[in-house]
Amino acid sequence: MSTVKLVDENTTDPRVRRVFDDIKETKRIDRVPNIWRALATHPEHLELCWTRLKAIMRPGKVDMLTKEIIALAVSVTNGCRYCINSHTAAAQKLGLDDAMLGEVLAVVGLYNQMNKLADAYQIEPDILPEAARK
Amino acid sequence: MSTVKLVDENTTDPRVRRVFDDIKETKRIDRVPNIWRALATHPEHLELCWTRLKAIMRPGKVDMLTKEIIALAVSVTNGCRYCINSHTAAAQKLGLDDAMLGEVLAVVGLYNQMNKLADAYQIEPDILPEAARK
Amino acid sequence: MSTVKLVDENTTDPRVRRVFDDIKETKRIDRVPNIWRALATHPEHLELCWTRLKAIMRPGKVDMLTKEIIALAVSVTNGCRYCINSHTAAAQKLGLDDAMLGEVLAVVGLYNQMNKLADAYQIEPDILPEAARK
Amino acid sequence: MSTVKLVDENTTDPRVRRVFDDIKETKRIDRVPNIWRALATHPEHLELCWTRLKAIMRPGKVDMLTKEIIALAVSVTNGCRYCINSHTAAAQKLGLDDAMLGEVLAVVGLYNQMNKLADAYQIEPDILPEAARK
Amino acid sequence: MSTVKLVDENTTDPRVRRVFDDIKETKRIDRVPNIWRALATHPEHLELCWTRLKAIMRPGKVDMLTKEIIALAVSVTNGCRYCINSHTAAAQKLGLDDAMLGEVLAVVGLYNQMNKLADAYQIEPDILPEAARK
Amino acid sequence: MSTVKLVDENTTDPRVRRVFDDIKETKRIDRVPNIWRALATHPEHLELCWTRLKAIMRPGKVDMLTKEIIALAVSVTNGCRYCINSHTAAAQKLGLDDAMLGEVLAVVGLYNQMNKLADAYQIEPDILPEAARK
Repeated sequence: MSTVKLVDENTTDPRVRRVFDDIKETKRIDRVPNIWRALATHPEHLELCWTRLKAIMRPGKVDMLTKEIIALAVSVTNGCRYCINSHTAAAQKLGLDDAMLGEVLAVVGLYNQMNKLADAYQIEPDILPEAARK
Repeated sequence: MSTVKLVDENTTDPRVRRVFDDIKETKRIDRVPNIWRALATHPEHLELCWTRLKAIMRPGKVDMLTKEIIALAVSVTNGCRYCINSHTAAAQKLGLDDAMLGEVLAVVGLYNQMNKLADAYQIEPDILPEAARK
Repeated sequence: MSTVKLVDENTTDPRVRRVFDDIKETKRIDRVPNIWRALATHPEHLELCWTRLKAIMRPGKVDMLTKEIIALAVSVTNGCRYCINSHTAAAQKLGLDDAMLGEVLAVVGLYNQMNKLADAYQIEPDILPEAARK
Repeated sequence: MSTVKLVDENTTDPRVRRVFDDIKETKRIDRVPNIWRALATHPEHLELCWTRLKAIMRPGKVDMLTKEIIALAVSVTNGCRYCINSHTAAAQKLGLDDAMLGEVLAVVGLYNQMNKLADAYQIEPDILPEAARK
Repeated sequence: MSTVKLVDENTTDPRVRRVFDDIKETKRIDRVPNIWRALATHPEHLELCWTRLKAIMRPGKVDMLTKEIIALAVSVTNGCRYCINSHTAAAQKLGLDDAMLGEVLAVVGLYNQMNKLADAYQIEPDILPEAARK
Repeated sequence: MSTVKLVDENTTDPRVRRVFDDIKETKRIDRVPNIWRALATHPEHLELCWTRLKAIMRPGKVDMLTKEIIALAVSVTNGCRYCINSHTAAAQKLGLDDAMLGEVLAVVGLYNQMNKLADAYQIEPDILPEAARK
């Protein structure tokens, strides 16, 4: 159960309502996801979060499926249940099937392991990325 | 400084040597990266790690640049210095420029924030991914 | 469901009972929270944890609400469900309303993002804190 | 060494320059901290990060010292070296002395421990925060 | 609820079936644990994970109870619910009683605290492990 | 560089001096490790940390080498540089050689991977540990 009372989708607060409407239109969904209804308990923070997310989560030099895959990789590494569910569903909507999901998670699992081995042995970097490009 | 003495690239241990040669050939590099020289202090673990990584880090349904981007997203979320350097360099080799890197990291930063907000408000999932596909 | 059988509040073990009574008196609550009933399966550890917590969680140079806010920030960053619930409730008891909670969580979310961006770009510190004070 | 070439403080890119000038003015500092010079490799992301941080990191219902303490608690929990340095210095500037820092870190250390013990025993919440307020 | 449909224990896929049978035989259990049924949605990844785990989780220079204790310490530090349950149960089967569990978790809790204090004060290492052995 | 000025080993503060002397005697070392010199900037916290650590880090139902291995597993999972160095050195002093270290880290790496896969697929526990014991 959430730690705050979720704001009603039909709230009369115009600032919240504007964000809620934009979320539904942008994401082409009928209901406002719970995370936004929780954030709406602080309308200014809701606006800051949504405008920022909207600016980042649109196709750019990186396509939307890749962006959802990155979001999933981050959410799995952080172990965030709500976000794992939501980004798995979003990536599936964009075409990620079980075989691709398995492949993505294989990479996520692999580097969660390798990260710790690199830390464990306190290894110095081989080459610096910037130097590598010159 | 690493916590173990890194195994020499020209070691005469045939099992380690076979892995080292395969690493250089597969990755088309001249030197064995330090992580493998540390893992070689336990030859069986070296083999397990390398054969697994080789099986996962090849093009499949997900392309190599996306896989390196996932590896970077995981490494950043874990804050692993060695791995951040190494996967940034690997992705740059595969074509990731500063603008794309900025876009990738914007997504990584965004969801590290959103993950914590979702946890903070203890929000229940809206919809289950599996259900979404049916 | 917990991984151990929680120790009964009315246990006859005098060492555990003494801690349980002190917890209820110090926190002015009627029931012993579940975390302490789990820790009581190892009475010495229960005592070590409680005496330490009691010594730290009292007003000092930092007031109690700020201490609960710090506890919440840590718990959110670690994604600990039990602790997020418990410190949100404790801070609310001390006067944290939804608007303040939103403001606190905005800072928590922001720096979970900024931490990862700083790590991602492998940026060297600008200035060392100690030096800053001299 | 950073993974991208830091943007020069005197860059002629007007969008970046505007943000850099605002950072120096808002924070009353002479040099642009390295994190912003790294983010400037993607000017749009720089703007998003700065405008958001500026909106959150100003006195509201929560004062600035408390906000820097929260930022420090998050940075320590994440183990981000750049951010620990920078928020320790910022809090020291706002009056945090060694005794207060010790007290803040005692709380941070304590709950990093308690979080893991609560997770370890898989304890169910005692009371839900929202319920506690009613 | 899992994000993929768990593969049936009696699947007719021979590759998956071979792994499932080996898991039950090796672990002397009647049912295939859910994690393997999820991984089976990508049979190649299932095989990679199982063969690797089987090679590592057998008595070597380190005994099985110690290995399960390490697995538990890692799972608690990561806050992974499924794994905490499963490794607590596995260690209990190998003889870990409540008093030993309490002692193990006391160490896990202690160093989750000390790790953060060491990071918080940005302390340089006293002595390098390799040097210590010479 | 540390964020506070490390307290001198020969400080005249009697409370700090008593702890420093006890650390050197208990650990049979000649110098006070840096972590304790940093904690000494808040003498009460120093005492709380040391008395607690001393009570936990002594042989009980779990032997000292296993305790240092647990400390290492936690420190690696958290990526704490100071602590990885210090617990690797401590375990090496107690007899951990490179082959055992490799085996320990193989388990640590493995479960950092498996933890994330379990979280990723949102798998429900198979069996509850407590139930397993009855």
